[in-house]
Amino acid sequence: MKIAVDAMGGDNAPKEIIEGAFKALEEFKDLEIQLFGHQEKMQEFLKDHDRLTVFHCEEIIEAEDDPVRSVRRKKDASMVRMAQAVKDGTADACVSAGNTGGLMSAGLFIVGRIEGVDRPALAPTLPTIDGKGFVMLDMGANAEARPEHLVQYAIMGSIYAEKVRGIQNPTVGLLNIGTEEKKGNDLTKAAFPLLKEAPINFVGNVESRDLLNGVADVVVTDGFTGNMVLKTIEGTAMNVFAMIKDVFMSSMKTKLAAALVKEDIRGLKGMLDYSEYGGAGLFGLKAPVIKAHGSSNSTAFFNAIRQTRTMIEFDVTGTIYNTLKKEQSE
Amino acid sequence: MKIAVDAMGGDNAPKEIIEGAFKALEEFKDLEIQLFGHQEKMQEFLKDHDRLTVFHCEEIIEAEDDPVRSVRRKKDASMVRMAQAVKDGTADACVSAGNTGGLMSAGLFIVGRIEGVDRPALAPTLPTIDGKGFVMLDMGANAEARPEHLVQYAIMGSIYAEKVRGIQNPTVGLLNIGTEEKKGNDLTKAAFPLLKEAPINFVGNVESRDLLNGVADVVVTDGFTGNMVLKTIEGTAMNVFAMIKDVFMSSMKTKLAAALVKEDIRGLKGMLDYSEYGGAGLFGLKAPVIKAHGSSNSTAFFNAIRQTRTMIEFDVTGTIYNTLKKEQSE
Repeated sequence: MKIAVDAMGGDNAPKEIIEGAFKALEEFKDLEIQLFGHQEKMQEFLKDHDRLTVFHCEEIIEAEDDPVRSVRRKKDASMVRMAQAVKDGTADACVSAGNTGGLMSAGLFIVGRIEGVDRPALAPTLPTIDGKGFVMLDMGANAEARPEHLVQYAIMGSIYAEKVRGIQNPTVGLLNIGTEEKKGNDLTKAAFPLLKEAPINFVGNVESRDLLNGVADVVVTDGFTGNMVLKTIEGTAMNVFAMIKDVFMSSMKTKLAAALVKEDIRGLKGMLDYSEYGGAGLFGLKAPVIKAHGSSNSTAFFNAIRQTRTMIEFDVTGTIYNTLKKEQSE
Repeated sequence: MKIAVDAMGGDNAPKEIIEGAFKALEEFKDLEIQLFGHQEKMQEFLKDHDRLTVFHCEEIIEAEDDPVRSVRRKKDASMVRMAQAVKDGTADACVSAGNTGGLMSAGLFIVGRIEGVDRPALAPTLPTIDGKGFVMLDMGANAEARPEHLVQYAIMGSIYAEKVRGIQNPTVGLLNIGTEEKKGNDLTKAAFPLLKEAPINFVGNVESRDLLNGVADVVVTDGFTGNMVLKTIEGTAMNVFAMIKDVFMSSMKTKLAAALVKEDIRGLKGMLDYSEYGGAGLFGLKAPVIKAHGSSNSTAFFNAIRQTRTMIEFDVTGTIYNTLKKEQSE
């Protein structure tokens, strides 16, 4: 199988991206990688490999670029060329650690939506305390959503949880401000009965305070709320750890304590680090498009490639297409 | 000034509520308290006081009661009678630690809205790392909001921050998923230009990950998002502290460390404890209606009474009425 990689995206590009790609080539003997990036900038990290092809691209979509405009204008950007390879059928899927909005635009406008999917959704796997994690979508591909979009998110998330994460009959929860059926805003109230009828293992409303406890394998919400909750979790966890660090640094006594638990606390922080959980899928596109974390090192990027490979192997895209088609013809 | 108190609301009623009321009577010599509750259940905690009047009520709005229905049907409930005293003008304001939805219904249907306010908003003061805290609204009085409601929230929150919290020219932020003006959903995009024109110190969009850092003195959002974010902060902080406790209990070495920092970590947890920050105001009603935290002890309830007293003293209700009237006639 062939995976197109944007070598220029992310904080540690191209070095860590290229190293991650080589790790993947080593691990998976059925894998071919197409590397899109600026030849000169990549040069020092490249070596010959029979399953690696390098494509020189003049341009880069920068972190601060306007997503839609830059994808339309920078025709020779590594991210655009990578998506084009998928559209042309020369690659089966693509991965980038670059500009999230840019990748969503490239996915939507170049790779294109699956027939039957109204809106693609950004779907990261988030950590839970027990280490299992859960898939949450939409995390911000579309700020607004209609009830039927949440149903499509639920179906796509379920298929992914089952095929890629290996969870049988995954539970699906609707993110809400209370667990009772009648709770919430107009969107959640209208989505609830539709989710009950959908071909998924719907467990009802779930609350944001229970997310880290693994309240469901798949959690669906509109992109505005999803993005808001994600940033709240990140901000709160970061702040609590910063406060604890301040406590540890406050006196000789606490510094001694810090020395005794430093490693364990660092482990905790890692457990809540989203970059450890691989990339976020852009679900609903004609081929797997994966957003690796912007701060990916070579291991994180390797994980994102592995995840992409599993999506191809278990034909997540085809299963989503067939399930939605069946659902909509009923 | 006269404050009506629901003696039967909250996890620690009536004991801690009554003790909090006595503390307030002791502290504020200009204060008269009207205590609404079940005589028999209150008996053992009561003592004579020349500025205390006790009213026997047969019924109680329970935590699990349907808010709207119970307020309409239980005419002799302590919470309903307390609100009725405010409506009748025999009390200047009221406080309850009981069923939040019930208190919102009692406020809306019995005390009534200020002319010019479309929807009341639940407005707690939330903690920040520097200990200053900020006012956020709406935290769930209404799941849906229109852009003009967010403007009313902003004006009410500003007045409260200035009058009760003593912050000159308080900054007001719009909770959003990005700081750029064009970011967000239909609601935030439409509210942004209106907030720019409003008679407040608007500082633009603020992100949820910066809330604990004190990004603004007043933060406005719709009730669904506000409630979601509040529960996310609570859940995340609680989980991180639980994980840290597990680390501390994992070995002899870490238990030793725990002994050295236990007090400081507990202090941290207290800093993030919402019950320490007094009650949540229900803004936009014809008189101050304050929701004390459900788990209030006598100190927390005393703080809620003090807060209510300050709202009466600085005529927050009258100022809201006059400001909105002026705003709407322009």
